[in-house]
Amino acid sequence: MNHTVDKNNPRQLRQSIRSGDFSDVTSGVAPGYVQCNLVILPADFAADFLLFCQRNPKPCPLLAISPEPGNPALPDLGVDIDVRTDAPLYRRWEHGRATATPNNLMDVWQDDHVAFALGCSFSFEEALLAAGIEIRNITEGVNVPMYRTDIACQPAGVFAGNMVVSMRPMSPKDAIRAIQICSRFPSVHGAPIHFGAPETIGISDLNNPDFGSRVTVHSGEVPVFWACGVTPQIALEQAKLPLAFTHYPGYMLITDTRNAELAVL
Amino acid sequence: MNHTVDKNNPRQLRQSIRSGDFSDVTSGVAPGYVQCNLVILPADFAADFLLFCQRNPKPCPLLAISPEPGNPALPDLGVDIDVRTDAPLYRRWEHGRATATPNNLMDVWQDDHVAFALGCSFSFEEALLAAGIEIRNITEGVNVPMYRTDIACQPAGVFAGNMVVSMRPMSPKDAIRAIQICSRFPSVHGAPIHFGAPETIGISDLNNPDFGSRVTVHSGEVPVFWACGVTPQIALEQAKLPLAFTHYPGYMLITDTRNAELAVL
Repeated sequence: MNHTVDKNNPRQLRQSIRSGDFSDVTSGVAPGYVQCNLVILPADFAADFLLFCQRNPKPCPLLAISPEPGNPALPDLGVDIDVRTDAPLYRRWEHGRATATPNNLMDVWQDDHVAFALGCSFSFEEALLAAGIEIRNITEGVNVPMYRTDIACQPAGVFAGNMVVSMRPMSPKDAIRAIQICSRFPSVHGAPIHFGAPETIGISDLNNPDFGSRVTVHSGEVPVFWACGVTPQIALEQAKLPLAFTHYPGYMLITDTRNAELAVL
Repeated sequence: MNHTVDKNNPRQLRQSIRSGDFSDVTSGVAPGYVQCNLVILPADFAADFLLFCQRNPKPCPLLAISPEPGNPALPDLGVDIDVRTDAPLYRRWEHGRATATPNNLMDVWQDDHVAFALGCSFSFEEALLAAGIEIRNITEGVNVPMYRTDIACQPAGVFAGNMVVSMRPMSPKDAIRAIQICSRFPSVHGAPIHFGAPETIGISDLNNPDFGSRVTVHSGEVPVFWACGVTPQIALEQAKLPLAFTHYPGYMLITDTRNAELAVL
């Protein structure tokens, strides 16, 4: 870690990620700035994936697309962004399976690659914390618990699959406030999609999340479920593309856009 | 009932209530227009009651106050309103007890009387129905179930007491949408204050409401609780004023203000 890097400055952080000086999870760094899920696909599948996002805006809230095939920039989110180098860790997908975790995509980037940047729950978690609402996974210092549901996404071309949700336990009072706050941020998953009984949406055991870590649910709390940005990775499993890339969960692309800019109200 | 009265026209309805031609509950009449809870007090207690409303805006959302003591008008809500005659039925309160149900207040109105008009759940029920959300008490044709809670209102002078809530059972999905919709209407009780476990707010038996009627709660539904305009009547019980008046629950004051005008967004 380069000690001269300002972790509050998104551009400096990207430079330091690019150079390999910063290779950690991005939770808590560059507070106030939007972090993104990344999906990188050959152009032949880009139209289908774009349609998948349009049909499933809660799990796949699209913030930006690279300007044209082969161009690794996302100028809407930061003038210097290079999606090949600016996430601290990536996932390589081959025929629906995650096969590697490269630090950058310099050697594998193709001139037909298109990058999609999707909103991430870090943005709304920040808004909830600012309102004095406890986020259990942050309190307990673990990744948010995520679950495969039985809620089918609207398919588009080769992309299909069930929605993945993240869960944060809250008192009903905090859950009501969280619904209000998150409704202001439709581009980072928006309002929860469910609360209460997990089995209603096909989750059999809250203590065994499919991704992330379990968190404590206190007496009097209800589990509150948000559509999750891991959903497109499930769609990649099903699409079985010969080659695709995503960021590695938790190792997000940090942008120059402020979370507050995403509020619709 | 005068057959020439247009039940969609608030001014005509008030005239027909004033003349005694209409003396029914006001649920469902003059759709689109705000209906109000009424509280009428001697001026000596008006400042305390105003403070009570200010401190407890969710159960006591104040829409208008009469212009000066003795003046029975509410010009902000309708140019011709006379609070002595324009609700179909009233309640007389003496020393904290409801002692009579007069049809009008012409004989008992005092030159120191001040009238308070408070928002009513009919306004947000209309917004929920417009969004396709079922309201169980409407489906079942009964008054909404209401419950005394153990949530203490912030006292003000002689006024104190616990909050009364109304309850509408919903699926979690509809409850999330209802929270969004009702948040737009803070002057008619706003977002729910609780959902789920009734005992958390001091309600021991959902099937035995303190006011109104029980409604069916289907499997998979949660009870959703809103602050209720009956709360000021509880405060009147505790204040034990020598004399006060309210509308009779369900027999509301119909105004010329449209529900849509109350939306903050």
